[in-house]
Amino acid sequence: MRMSPASLPRRVLAEFTGTAALVAVIVGSGIRADSLSQDTGVRLLANASASAIGLGLLIALLGPLSGAHFNPVVTLSEWWTRRREREGGREVLAYLAAQVAGAVGGALLAEAMFGRAPGSWSTEPRAALHLLLGEAVATAGLVLVVQGLRHVGRPQLAPVAVAGYIGAAIWFTSSGSFANPAATVGRSLTDSFTGIAPSSVPAYAAAQLLGMLAGMGLAGVLYGTTGPRAEPAGASGRPSG
Amino acid sequence: MRMSPASLPRRVLAEFTGTAALVAVIVGSGIRADSLSQDTGVRLLANASASAIGLGLLIALLGPLSGAHFNPVVTLSEWWTRRREREGGREVLAYLAAQVAGAVGGALLAEAMFGRAPGSWSTEPRAALHLLLGEAVATAGLVLVVQGLRHVGRPQLAPVAVAGYIGAAIWFTSSGSFANPAATVGRSLTDSFTGIAPSSVPAYAAAQLLGMLAGMGLAGVLYGTTGPRAEPAGASGRPSG
Amino acid sequence: MRMSPASLPRRVLAEFTGTAALVAVIVGSGIRADSLSQDTGVRLLANASASAIGLGLLIALLGPLSGAHFNPVVTLSEWWTRRREREGGREVLAYLAAQVAGAVGGALLAEAMFGRAPGSWSTEPRAALHLLLGEAVATAGLVLVVQGLRHVGRPQLAPVAVAGYIGAAIWFTSSGSFANPAATVGRSLTDSFTGIAPSSVPAYAAAQLLGMLAGMGLAGVLYGTTGPRAEPAGASGRPSG
Amino acid sequence: MRMSPASLPRRVLAEFTGTAALVAVIVGSGIRADSLSQDTGVRLLANASASAIGLGLLIALLGPLSGAHFNPVVTLSEWWTRRREREGGREVLAYLAAQVAGAVGGALLAEAMFGRAPGSWSTEPRAALHLLLGEAVATAGLVLVVQGLRHVGRPQLAPVAVAGYIGAAIWFTSSGSFANPAATVGRSLTDSFTGIAPSSVPAYAAAQLLGMLAGMGLAGVLYGTTGPRAEPAGASGRPSG
Repeated sequence: MRMSPASLPRRVLAEFTGTAALVAVIVGSGIRADSLSQDTGVRLLANASASAIGLGLLIALLGPLSGAHFNPVVTLSEWWTRRREREGGREVLAYLAAQVAGAVGGALLAEAMFGRAPGSWSTEPRAALHLLLGEAVATAGLVLVVQGLRHVGRPQLAPVAVAGYIGAAIWFTSSGSFANPAATVGRSLTDSFTGIAPSSVPAYAAAQLLGMLAGMGLAGVLYGTTGPRAEPAGASGRPSG
Repeated sequence: MRMSPASLPRRVLAEFTGTAALVAVIVGSGIRADSLSQDTGVRLLANASASAIGLGLLIALLGPLSGAHFNPVVTLSEWWTRRREREGGREVLAYLAAQVAGAVGGALLAEAMFGRAPGSWSTEPRAALHLLLGEAVATAGLVLVVQGLRHVGRPQLAPVAVAGYIGAAIWFTSSGSFANPAATVGRSLTDSFTGIAPSSVPAYAAAQLLGMLAGMGLAGVLYGTTGPRAEPAGASGRPSG
Repeated sequence: MRMSPASLPRRVLAEFTGTAALVAVIVGSGIRADSLSQDTGVRLLANASASAIGLGLLIALLGPLSGAHFNPVVTLSEWWTRRREREGGREVLAYLAAQVAGAVGGALLAEAMFGRAPGSWSTEPRAALHLLLGEAVATAGLVLVVQGLRHVGRPQLAPVAVAGYIGAAIWFTSSGSFANPAATVGRSLTDSFTGIAPSSVPAYAAAQLLGMLAGMGLAGVLYGTTGPRAEPAGASGRPSG
Repeated sequence: MRMSPASLPRRVLAEFTGTAALVAVIVGSGIRADSLSQDTGVRLLANASASAIGLGLLIALLGPLSGAHFNPVVTLSEWWTRRREREGGREVLAYLAAQVAGAVGGALLAEAMFGRAPGSWSTEPRAALHLLLGEAVATAGLVLVVQGLRHVGRPQLAPVAVAGYIGAAIWFTSSGSFANPAATVGRSLTDSFTGIAPSSVPAYAAAQLLGMLAGMGLAGVLYGTTGPRAEPAGASGRPSG
């Protein structure tokens, strides 16, 4: 899973920082949009745009350090895909812990920036079955984007592609497209536009893990299960819009 | 028409998956925008943005497998343009079938994600003559973009250019810019913001085919009718914003 | 002024087609946005986005044919800047005629697409002095962008940069940022959101020409008046976001 | 701090022009959005988008001349980071003076473009403690983006990355994300949507400087404190989305 020469502590710090910043962006832009607009569609346009751009920047800036997962679904699916070169579960556990801790920290920072008392639980239930289907679809798509970019030899497009995916998925799924168990935990700690009631967190996380498996399966069928195909000479350096 | 070393079944699967995902994005984001905003302009901003981004990602991810047509108009115009190297109509038929089946599947998936009973027909008539003119213009422009990118030696820009085109055409034409007979069939199966009554489907498809011919003619006049011009050395590798 | 090996008739056709498409996009998206949204801010968001994307695509697709001016201000400023290699005024006149004819054709096409009787004059006066200041600023900025990209060795970014500029200038100036005498003439032929009363056209065109001169002067002062500086080896091929 | 072979007067002129244009874009788009939309969310969407695009273009066009700081926070943090190669404080002072003068000029130009009497002070207080926290976070993030891009070997992405950052930060912080002491001074001279009361300027500037230090510290911890790491061969030329 090692994606850079950075040491494990530095990589874990990057995962913590990146996940904290991501959740602060999501929660903060949600609070601000909610306070400024009368129209929920406008609120979500602002929240989705800011969240997508923030995620893309964090991937560009921290990808060379830690791989810029910020998401247990990405860490687990990457670990499985690269399991032949794996270095043990210790790194996976460190990543997951940093992601959850970062998500909680980011939610608290956002609350503080808006003059709200940090530490309130969300009161927004998200439990209907069709929401869980939406969340599984959202996560499957995310995994397909991440793995597909590698299969087509364009991993360098991840900042733009993953950002665009999340910005679109917030709209085309019914669930808000959390697609990230760590961020889901963090977002239970804000009683605002982007929150999720703690009682709905386990179901969302389960749907995300099922979606992860579906995404890995779909990538395997589409691109072949033998892992990254040999790249034709020059393919990875192909400029691309 | 072969655009990659992938086998025909794998290419057909890519067309099915891509068209399903595209229609799920269009229909899903339309349902969500409709439920969240009071303003039809805001609804269409969200729907157009999500649809454009989704299409761009699918072209980037599946283009290397199947050419990422997802649209009978693209398959037919590409087949005609490259007819000297064609391998027979069997592949065209397989692509068209996969596209229509995918579009239907995508519409049903979107309905399910939003807790609606899949399988209702749209009740939105789209039959006025000026809408058909708009739809022909939309499709002509799409064909011009696809063929023009090849003529100017920048086919690698297709994900961004085609996405941008559709996002803009949804606004500048009167018809909603379906520009895709398969997606038109799929969108007859949702009684929501992005639907089209089944009775309007044949006229829309006819307008799209006429627009395809107009776009091919315009590309021929603008760039010359001798097909793709010889690329100057290095042109296709030119980085470009 | 020759920017491609295309023949003059083909280049003129490209200017006609591009300007027609540009004005159809501007006017069409304005009509549609006006009919869909209750909020003028939302209308302008949609209209500005569609116009910017359309312009960027047209520059990418037709730039290799004609230089993708679509605008007398660009044609005149390019002619002046490259006057040492000029081939006479005949080409300039052909470009200007094609641009004005295209702009009129594009406005009529947009009206027809929306089921409106083509040929009505706009009733929207735009004559206040501060609007003319806004229009001069908008045009100066456009010329600075076009000439600046060449000075910094990145003319290949024109599709994205010019599109972005127009999308922003529509918002930051008071005048709507026509910045194009041909498009201004075309837009006098639509009694809709993006129109301009014929009586205001001469003042707008004069402000645009003054803005052109200001932009050329500013570019000269900022980058030096000796024309395009020698590019360091490889600079023009530098990939860039 | 020298980032180009341009002479100091030319660089100072670029800083003046760029900061003036930036503030004119911010203030002008704010006035226009305020006059067109009924919804503050829509107003901020338009204002944030135009401001981000304008900033990105100015960085692309003027970066090769002056480094495109337009912001004392950037000038000071760059000066500190590159202090071993510094050429004395004279250049820093010239940059800061040009930035403040440009910001004032840009605000006055925007007022004039909209037919308002230039020179009114803003009446919008921005003094609450949580706003200052938001402003410090916004500035820390800006410094992290600028310095991070260099550490990961992608400084050529600055136009897109810095523009995207500001566009998102306007939403995810509570303070409006001025993140720029010169622009803050300029924005005290407009009694409109994007203004700030003169009495709030010192606290905002102090928060920005604290945020700058936090951002420099965070960059040091994440990337290592030994300054720009040696770039692997070819890294800076890596194409990237």
